[in-house]
Amino acid sequence: MYSESLVKLGKVRSEIREIFEYANKRKAEIGADKVFDFSIGNPSVPAPETVNNAVIDLVQNFDSVALHGYTSAQGDAKVRQSISDYINQRFGTKLTANHIYMTCGAASSLTIVLNAIMLPQEECIVFTPYFPEYGVFLERTGAKLVPVESEEKTFQIDIERLKKAITEKTKAVIINSPNNPSGVVYSVETIQKMCALLKEKEKEYGHSIFVITDEPYRELVYDDVEVPYIINYYDNTFVCYSYSKALSLPGERIGYIAVSPSMECEEDAYAAICGAGRALGYVCASSMYQRVIEKCLDDTADISIYKRNRDLLYNSLKDMGYQCVYPDGAFYLFVKAMCEDAHEFCEKAKEFELLLVPADSFGTPGYVRVSYCVQTKQIEDALGAFKKLAECYQ
Amino acid sequence: MYSESLVKLGKVRSEIREIFEYANKRKAEIGADKVFDFSIGNPSVPAPETVNNAVIDLVQNFDSVALHGYTSAQGDAKVRQSISDYINQRFGTKLTANHIYMTCGAASSLTIVLNAIMLPQEECIVFTPYFPEYGVFLERTGAKLVPVESEEKTFQIDIERLKKAITEKTKAVIINSPNNPSGVVYSVETIQKMCALLKEKEKEYGHSIFVITDEPYRELVYDDVEVPYIINYYDNTFVCYSYSKALSLPGERIGYIAVSPSMECEEDAYAAICGAGRALGYVCASSMYQRVIEKCLDDTADISIYKRNRDLLYNSLKDMGYQCVYPDGAFYLFVKAMCEDAHEFCEKAKEFELLLVPADSFGTPGYVRVSYCVQTKQIEDALGAFKKLAECYQ
Repeated sequence: MYSESLVKLGKVRSEIREIFEYANKRKAEIGADKVFDFSIGNPSVPAPETVNNAVIDLVQNFDSVALHGYTSAQGDAKVRQSISDYINQRFGTKLTANHIYMTCGAASSLTIVLNAIMLPQEECIVFTPYFPEYGVFLERTGAKLVPVESEEKTFQIDIERLKKAITEKTKAVIINSPNNPSGVVYSVETIQKMCALLKEKEKEYGHSIFVITDEPYRELVYDDVEVPYIINYYDNTFVCYSYSKALSLPGERIGYIAVSPSMECEEDAYAAICGAGRALGYVCASSMYQRVIEKCLDDTADISIYKRNRDLLYNSLKDMGYQCVYPDGAFYLFVKAMCEDAHEFCEKAKEFELLLVPADSFGTPGYVRVSYCVQTKQIEDALGAFKKLAECYQ
Repeated sequence: MYSESLVKLGKVRSEIREIFEYANKRKAEIGADKVFDFSIGNPSVPAPETVNNAVIDLVQNFDSVALHGYTSAQGDAKVRQSISDYINQRFGTKLTANHIYMTCGAASSLTIVLNAIMLPQEECIVFTPYFPEYGVFLERTGAKLVPVESEEKTFQIDIERLKKAITEKTKAVIINSPNNPSGVVYSVETIQKMCALLKEKEKEYGHSIFVITDEPYRELVYDDVEVPYIINYYDNTFVCYSYSKALSLPGERIGYIAVSPSMECEEDAYAAICGAGRALGYVCASSMYQRVIEKCLDDTADISIYKRNRDLLYNSLKDMGYQCVYPDGAFYLFVKAMCEDAHEFCEKAKEFELLLVPADSFGTPGYVRVSYCVQTKQIEDALGAFKKLAECYQ
């Protein structure tokens, strides 16, 4: 009677949700400060003051009918101009307002791009570990998700494995750097090698292969790490950006798609984006939040807090004997479970009130994700528990 | 290379958009007050003060991380509880928070419901005149749009025609009352007859037929007209509500789906809604605007302005010899063109600087839509032009 696959999807209780509910129950039982919840990917740092000031300023001084009225479907022209100017200045690109399409965050950027380009039976490559929703989004287009295992330990793209995975049906590759859940940032070298291979394969198969770069964590990098701007390396690129993490506004659903000015049939690409947004029911992104982010383009939430958390957690866990990837960005630590089964490891962790997420659904069994977008005090208080957990396996 | 149908959709320049651009050009040429633009469906009345006060209060007094953080996909539990309480109190229904799913406005409410229930080849009935985007939304599900002509003059549902249109493949019926573009409100009698027929057909074919009621104009009714609450008349009902017009917030994209508590396999229905929202990339509706509308549930923009406009425009045009439906709601006057071709009529209107929308794309050739969500002065100033236009056909 209803779409069977969607009923199933709606009923699947996500692991993270299960942990969330367990956390609430446990907190009620033993007190919130005794439960060390590292399962959530919600920014713990408030939005910068500029955001709230912009909201108040707009509501008080901007004409209400214009402020809350429809913008054009692709977004307010002035906002799009400001964003393209900002990107050009920062990355040396040549975008115009007509390469920017405002969206309700990264998830909608992705569904819009995927609907615009993926046809049934075509293939879209992703690299482990990858965000499980990619599979959900792709399924509705009729296209196929093809996971490619990353290099061990570094979690950079394994170019040889990628080479083997590309077929005539390959239409797109999704990259996510800084990565959720590994925290890894792809190096310039990785990006150059990947782009060279894709160009070679485009020639070999005689059709375009698109790179979709999912970048909600772009601003969350530490120690002056550079995140290569893919449009500068590869023509057929769609950038899916979100302000969720940069400005700590995940609930407000605001982001954009940037279409490379050098993309093949670039006007058709942008038209397909507009068509997909319309067909999926996205009338426009929030008219007020479009104008809010325009006033905060150069700003971010206080990232230094995440860096402090990263340093404390990474160094402490390494000292205890945990094996983990050094995260250059995002707010996750990707830790090898100390036994084969990550679920079993997470159950054991619960005995010490540590709530971790098994990474099986990210395509990487045997690993767990530890979110450090938490109060630093929680990390300090949890170190004893992490130590006891490690001791169970020594 | 891209989805052909979506490229085409993205390139189609809507008639209303064309008129919008013509209006801007013409205003620059002869002055804004000389151009009488009746083409736009954007609320002209500002949001009530309570909305802006709620925004400022939330930003100043609500914890920033919670305010701008993700809510659950179906929406904040407290907000959903408040909405279901409000609906129950107003319409005597028995909804709970778990029958409400917060959305980014009516368009996303519709795409989510249609994706949840419509399978390829199934049929969805709409009544002329109908919102052309219904066809766009349905096309992506693989289902078929079946337009049924309404009664002449009254534009109520023609039950005999509906009876003939229902087949074994009929899965849903979309109603839109108050109607865009006719302004007509379906009477209790119309709704009762429609529901009786649908129940009969459900029995005959042995499967559910859903009513999807698209209600962005529910609050915009004049003279104490009653808009029947469909859940009270028919079990298998999805209400697609939006605050766009009620609170003059069309750009903020906030609304909800209400699933009837008596719906067949109600839990599956709600799960399918959740699954569809997820698959289409709707993570959650704006976390801040969810809480804003919670504080304004009993409020609306100043509707009396639309009533004043309606009375002035309808009475004046009737006096001039125009044939038009008396609009009980929304902010449109549906006028019979004075020649056969509505496009030709709108071209003629342009000679008097009147910008009207031909209603061919709404499935009703020979009619034009006149939006009266404008400053009252524009209507007063335009009456001479309407008179001259009528005189061309006398």
